Amino acid sequence: MVLVAPRNPLNIGAAARALANFGLDDLRLVNPYKAAFREAVSAVGAEHVMRTARVFETVAESVADCSLVVGLTAAQRRELQQPIARLADGIPQVREHGGRVALMFGSEKTGLSNEDMSYCHALIRIPTAPETPSMNLGQAVAVCLYELRRDSRDANEAPARRVRADAIAGSDAEQVTKMLLEVLEQSGYTKRITAVSTEQKIRRWVRRTRLSRRDAPLLLGILRQVLWKLR
Amino acid sequence: MVLVAPRNPLNIGAAARALANFGLDDLRLVNPYKAAFREAVSAVGAEHVMRTARVFETVAESVADCSLVVGLTAAQRRELQQPIARLADGIPQVREHGGRVALMFGSEKTGLSNEDMSYCHALIRIPTAPETPSMNLGQAVAVCLYELRRDSRDANEAPARRVRADAIAGSDAEQVTKMLLEVLEQSGYTKRITAVSTEQKIRRWVRRTRLSRRDAPLLLGILRQVLWKLR
Repeated sequence: MVLVAPRNPLNIGAAARALANFGLDDLRLVNPYKAAFREAVSAVGAEHVMRTARVFETVAESVADCSLVVGLTAAQRRELQQPIARLADGIPQVREHGGRVALMFGSEKTGLSNEDMSYCHALIRIPTAPETPSMNLGQAVAVCLYELRRDSRDANEAPARRVRADAIAGSDAEQVTKMLLEVLEQSGYTKRITAVSTEQKIRRWVRRTRLSRRDAPLLLGILRQVLWKLR
Repeated sequence: MVLVAPRNPLNIGAAARALANFGLDDLRLVNPYKAAFREAVSAVGAEHVMRTARVFETVAESVADCSLVVGLTAAQRRELQQPIARLADGIPQVREHGGRVALMFGSEKTGLSNEDMSYCHALIRIPTAPETPSMNLGQAVAVCLYELRRDSRDANEAPARRVRADAIAGSDAEQVTKMLLEVLEQSGYTKRITAVSTEQKIRRWVRRTRLSRRDAPLLLGILRQVLWKLR
């Protein structure tokens, strides 16, 4: 689980507690607002999760070893660039994914940014009331993990894994993204003024295509060759 | 929703927020630990829920107008006197019940007592990891309400109601209970030493039989007559 820029240590502790409640323990934080988050009193029974929680400076680093990244968003007041599924419809792909999966949550105030979401293969929303859509971070985490384990007999039961064991890791996807962007820049495709939105577009596209591990070296080889030619 | 003896106002606010998130607003508190709970900062977007929350002195009063009472429990270290269902299996009866339903949660430290549970027609548990079963109150509330609304298109959609529109209210069930207990006492059935456990047993039994509204006057009439005779 990845929390991007969480502000309130109590919410970090609550997320850790929910992980422990549902038999999980991998907590990653991108730029938490308070460095002293490990002391959060809300992490009842989840001291081991807090102790081993890792801090990253960028979203890219936090999901470098993940081959599926799923972002949670209330999807308010923002035009989404990606399809979004109801939690119950979106979780099966998480449960059945063969590789490492990251569930990504944004900060309490703003949720996930478009930039954050560009690292996601899929987006999920919890179906809430339209007039009060925004959930507390700790509660949203608990609801997602509950849905993840909902059909297990108990929360420790290992989920069945079937598909996409060969999806490329986040770091490989990011390498493809970066190289592609360089090609676009070198080729003159990228305009200065639209550089940021182009970068997000390309990043989303690379995730959407769901490259396999075998695709990556091939694609990187092609891009390297094109780049050499362009220079 | 009924919270029995909640200690932390933040959890009360979180419960209120979850109610608002899932399109509900009826919050009832039995003996909250802090009178100033209405100021809880965690009730983001749920100010109306907090404002209209009602405080009761007894569990009986809090569910007097409810014809189905469902208790949430982690069911640890306690021999349960009632059957307990996994959340996903237990919620359909809540969703489809024709009358007013109470979802009842115990205090943060101790959960629901046997006495509290004796007012419940059914018990429900969230399937958590055996070694960390106890959830944060606000998170448990959110998970239950999510499951309640899970299959609606959005959380405001009215649930389908089919069955048990004629179940008796909590106050009638309690009247039957009290009168039955008096009969037992007058008849010499109740021993001083087992009075409390007998009361809970009888209360559970009255709920388990799922009396209809038409049964109540009949039964009360019979009990009144027996009592008159006993005296």
